[in-house]
Amino acid sequence: MPSFTVFKGSKEGVKKSTTTKPDELKGDQVLLRVTVSGLCGTDLHYKEQDMVLGHEGSGVVEAVGPEVKNLAKGDRVGWGYQTDACGACQQCLTGHETYCAGRNLYGYHNFDQGSFASGAVWREAFLHKLPDNLSDEAAAPLQCGGATVYAALQGLEKPGVTVGVLGVGGLGHLAIQFAAKMGCRVVVLSGSSAKREQALQLGAHKFVATNEGQTLGDDGEGWTIDRLLVTSSVQPKWDSLLPMMSMRSQIYPLSVSHTDLVIPYLPLIAMGITIQGSLVADRSVHREMLQFAALQGVKPITETFPMTEAGISEAIGKLEDGKMIYRGVLIPAN
Amino acid sequence: MPSFTVFKGSKEGVKKSTTTKPDELKGDQVLLRVTVSGLCGTDLHYKEQDMVLGHEGSGVVEAVGPEVKNLAKGDRVGWGYQTDACGACQQCLTGHETYCAGRNLYGYHNFDQGSFASGAVWREAFLHKLPDNLSDEAAAPLQCGGATVYAALQGLEKPGVTVGVLGVGGLGHLAIQFAAKMGCRVVVLSGSSAKREQALQLGAHKFVATNEGQTLGDDGEGWTIDRLLVTSSVQPKWDSLLPMMSMRSQIYPLSVSHTDLVIPYLPLIAMGITIQGSLVADRSVHREMLQFAALQGVKPITETFPMTEAGISEAIGKLEDGKMIYRGVLIPAN
Repeated sequence: MPSFTVFKGSKEGVKKSTTTKPDELKGDQVLLRVTVSGLCGTDLHYKEQDMVLGHEGSGVVEAVGPEVKNLAKGDRVGWGYQTDACGACQQCLTGHETYCAGRNLYGYHNFDQGSFASGAVWREAFLHKLPDNLSDEAAAPLQCGGATVYAALQGLEKPGVTVGVLGVGGLGHLAIQFAAKMGCRVVVLSGSSAKREQALQLGAHKFVATNEGQTLGDDGEGWTIDRLLVTSSVQPKWDSLLPMMSMRSQIYPLSVSHTDLVIPYLPLIAMGITIQGSLVADRSVHREMLQFAALQGVKPITETFPMTEAGISEAIGKLEDGKMIYRGVLIPAN
Repeated sequence: MPSFTVFKGSKEGVKKSTTTKPDELKGDQVLLRVTVSGLCGTDLHYKEQDMVLGHEGSGVVEAVGPEVKNLAKGDRVGWGYQTDACGACQQCLTGHETYCAGRNLYGYHNFDQGSFASGAVWREAFLHKLPDNLSDEAAAPLQCGGATVYAALQGLEKPGVTVGVLGVGGLGHLAIQFAAKMGCRVVVLSGSSAKREQALQLGAHKFVATNEGQTLGDDGEGWTIDRLLVTSSVQPKWDSLLPMMSMRSQIYPLSVSHTDLVIPYLPLIAMGITIQGSLVADRSVHREMLQFAALQGVKPITETFPMTEAGISEAIGKLEDGKMIYRGVLIPAN
């Protein structure tokens, strides 16, 4: 029976395995050959689970089901954290399928499919055509990391607002680029000065090393942050951030944290601050993001690893140690 | 030298005192005779401070300064938590003067003025004309309590959304009325069933006694809360509230709490929830609120006390004991 290679989590490390190819594609199913997978912080939470890992895929269409309408063999596509939704609830009907109660999200459904694989089968409806001038390697980290930060930059009141990006990593280095290309003033907050030059090169206008006693007000220019994207791997010290925020500003906590959010209460009210939960991106936003990245030259900085047990293990170790610069990508042998 | 009576906080209780009337009104200053003052939970935080108490005033214009343009002797006006702003910053210039860094707020400025008084002097710019069919007594609690909940009901995505009101007190009983009159589905969350009939009479469609093991899902009708106004005097148990919330819903914490906000983190992100800090109302919203209340018959339920040391002390005691139904108002002797 035909199959493709997949890599699954386990307590002993990532293991090579196989997923059976369906004899026949049904409905709007699409069979892909995976060309590149990104490695996302969220993958670390599932690395011991018996499921195929990876949710930042680039690939090429190999075959399509009878109801596929817009994709054909040879098309380049990407997919991310969400791979299905009910299509009928109020959230779906208003274009917010990311919040559909019947959504299929990575880690909750389709445990036999993932982007750490030589192939995958997904519904056409949740695949995203890749623009011609966006490489498979650049596109992969955009499918979750890029979508997450781009969605958190939607609905800015005006283009010249000051966007803060806390953390310069897989998400942060993309957030800096997107915000700068949108015309925002970009302030990067990072523990040390180590990533200062890199952040400025990516488009940041100011850099604040928070663990070196710096604050945004130091230069006397009076900037305050209108929207803060928190992309660090753990929750920041919220009380030291609030004095750098504008009145009526917004905080997007994008870190994955299993502890409570603990934040000073009265300043939230007195300053009219918004804390906005945000999960990846609806498809309409996801597809705009790919077009924006292609036109504006937003490009992940990647480190390449072979998609093998050893290669994945090395990449995971580097990400866990905080040493990935800035997004690992895995290349299948096929 | 002419003066008017005021009531100030002190460690020994509320004390009668006087504030000097200015010999001459300057700029757009207005001299008022106070007719009614509301008593707000925020007053309790200042009851030991050496300052005139009260920030929910109704009154009548007695005299106007040389630059007053729209008010004249005999006009009925109200004022609330904010009595001045710089008029020149970005927040002021965009109609968000509540968040002006140079704002004058109750408890921070003008310690010799307040609504626990027989008179007051304020800038015309922060006085609000009262509609003819809104009595001074009804208008007073709207100046802070009404403004606070009305502002938190702005920007609803559509009229038929489900609004939750947690707590049936000074703010809550107004929030129920406003939300119901706006056409919202209104769910009231209260500890016990004691206020059930009252809440339904005020316009609530459903009532959930949270400490009696009830939840919103019990009736199987599938309502979830799109926007929750937290009007209880202390922070609620956030983790028991989140399962009653809709995807992409909004929480407005309106309680005054000196502890941190501690709320489950991952559900915020997975559900796309917004936590929105909100402080009273900008003047444009405040004035709309008064018109809305007058037209729609939104009316505070009040208990009346004489504006004397004994009367104020009794009212404060009742509010502190949670026995006020629902808003205390003080009537000066003049």
